[in-house]
Amino acid sequence: MRKELASFLKEIRPLDQKAMQFARARQDQLTKPQGSLGRLEELSIQLAGIRGDALAPLKNKVVITMAGDHGVVATGVSAYPQDVTPQMVYNFLRGGAGINVMARQVGARVVVVDMGVAASLEPHPQLVSRKVAAGTSNLAVGPAMSSEQADQAILAGIEVVESEIKRGLDIVGTGDMGIGNTTPSSAICAAITGQPVATITGKGTGINPRQRAHKVKVIEQALEVNCPNPGDALDVLAKVGGFEIGGLAGVIVGAAHNRVPVVIDGFISGAAALIACGLAPQARDYIVASHMSVEPGHKAMLRFLGLKPLLDLNLRLGEGTGAALGIFLADTAVHVLAEMATFAEAGVSEANPKLD
Amino acid sequence: MRKELASFLKEIRPLDQKAMQFARARQDQLTKPQGSLGRLEELSIQLAGIRGDALAPLKNKVVITMAGDHGVVATGVSAYPQDVTPQMVYNFLRGGAGINVMARQVGARVVVVDMGVAASLEPHPQLVSRKVAAGTSNLAVGPAMSSEQADQAILAGIEVVESEIKRGLDIVGTGDMGIGNTTPSSAICAAITGQPVATITGKGTGINPRQRAHKVKVIEQALEVNCPNPGDALDVLAKVGGFEIGGLAGVIVGAAHNRVPVVIDGFISGAAALIACGLAPQARDYIVASHMSVEPGHKAMLRFLGLKPLLDLNLRLGEGTGAALGIFLADTAVHVLAEMATFAEAGVSEANPKLD
Repeated sequence: MRKELASFLKEIRPLDQKAMQFARARQDQLTKPQGSLGRLEELSIQLAGIRGDALAPLKNKVVITMAGDHGVVATGVSAYPQDVTPQMVYNFLRGGAGINVMARQVGARVVVVDMGVAASLEPHPQLVSRKVAAGTSNLAVGPAMSSEQADQAILAGIEVVESEIKRGLDIVGTGDMGIGNTTPSSAICAAITGQPVATITGKGTGINPRQRAHKVKVIEQALEVNCPNPGDALDVLAKVGGFEIGGLAGVIVGAAHNRVPVVIDGFISGAAALIACGLAPQARDYIVASHMSVEPGHKAMLRFLGLKPLLDLNLRLGEGTGAALGIFLADTAVHVLAEMATFAEAGVSEANPKLD
Repeated sequence: MRKELASFLKEIRPLDQKAMQFARARQDQLTKPQGSLGRLEELSIQLAGIRGDALAPLKNKVVITMAGDHGVVATGVSAYPQDVTPQMVYNFLRGGAGINVMARQVGARVVVVDMGVAASLEPHPQLVSRKVAAGTSNLAVGPAMSSEQADQAILAGIEVVESEIKRGLDIVGTGDMGIGNTTPSSAICAAITGQPVATITGKGTGINPRQRAHKVKVIEQALEVNCPNPGDALDVLAKVGGFEIGGLAGVIVGAAHNRVPVVIDGFISGAAALIACGLAPQARDYIVASHMSVEPGHKAMLRFLGLKPLLDLNLRLGEGTGAALGIFLADTAVHVLAEMATFAEAGVSEANPKLD
């Protein structure tokens, strides 16, 4: 690992306990039975701890959607041709994809990043080019990337989120695009959580049972050939990861370092979170898990990280669509804490203490 | 039942299959793997069937929050004094309650209705007065209301929602306020679903185990004394219901009659939905269940109705707070269906048919 990255990771601090205590105490003074807004209350307390401020609105919202291609598609693990990755990048840039619609719904900008698409993308004012290479190597036969490339992907992610922070950023969501990228994500999941590949491998964009069985074999082979070291997240990323996954891991640690809440999307963002928390366990507290994906490995990831998803809507699109919904809930949680009247302000009687 | 109500209920029509088919077909043409937006896709299809239009945005959004008091509080079933009902109504009118913040978040107006608060409320331009009486009678010793009052509550609910429809209404959420109202809601739940009172009775705003045991006895007594007929929803409402519950049942059937989607909140709205669907089983298809409440009886209600909640955030506030979040998801679902590009429009390749 580059020295600069190692020291950056060490600087991620614990949450601000004082701000969390303030948020908790205020929740209990608002005109509602204590705890009656459930997960929204918990979320407001976590956000206070992350930001060091319980009441400041989440004004600037961004979803960072990172794209990359995967050499492993040569083995036939996806239902879609690889061309779809650049095609979808153009769809993002034109505003026609799911993430565009959902980001508009929640007032978030979408930042599209080419981390390693296997095509030469036309320049576009909204496209950030951080291409590490034109797709990873086939992880079924050797490492997906070199350790230098793994470093580079993470540093690029940090730089992307820090450049957004310079423009003003109060909350960031992570999203992905990359045909074949449930395969490296499953490999990362198996390598780090220790769960059997067959258990945590799903249907991705929609392959049939025969194809899924093949995908399981490819992932098992990748783990045998590469022997990623589960205690070394950078090694796991290099051996069986992807450029967009590394970039998103960088976004997560970069956000944590700057005390910006990071709302992770589904399975691919979950793989990035495993890498990020492997690099810097303190980053975990800065993560909000937006939803539980249909991909079976997602549950194993979130359990391993000790994260509880907010939503369970059978989503499996990626792009950051679930993260956008999570950003909305975070925004709502902060508004509730800041704007609801207290019992004293509203002249509302509190619960009868006899009953407590 | 009044004749006008009976014929009104019969006029609720089935969903528009053609609009649903259009929505389903369009979902499959949008630039995402088929089905990958899960519950949001299903929701868009249901909304199309309700409205007869798959793509029209949900512009006018309203949460109708109905307040009422309950004679049964004399038996000590709630942690809060009855004064809190009018105090919270004033809090709603000043914009300081949870529902106000959350409705602002989703761009909905809040319509506050006095269905039967046991206090004389000061007139307010935003307060709709449809008071049936100053609180119900104690259902532990006799019927909560007369059958005429039950009729009146439902008709009032229909009139309230129809007056909003005249102003312009694309989606409506239901909400409640009424100290003690988890008690009649549990009684309705037990009477209609047949579940044991002890199983479906919860802690309401936060009573202790001893108080909960007392509440169970009160509800069991109410069912014994009143013998509500589970096959006659109006009878159940009169014997063990509440004015705000009857009003909300009216909102539900009124919305269904006018093909307006109705997003129900938690436990009290669930009791209203049981009454509404008892009166008019076709109303069920017009209901979107926003969330799973912490109240244990809510699950029994939704299962009985065959409704699947969108969210599970440990909410138990009521007021329509969960419904507001449901309205946001409905709005998002329609935007996605209307605004996402199709494969053809975006020039994106579809899934490889070999794999299907």
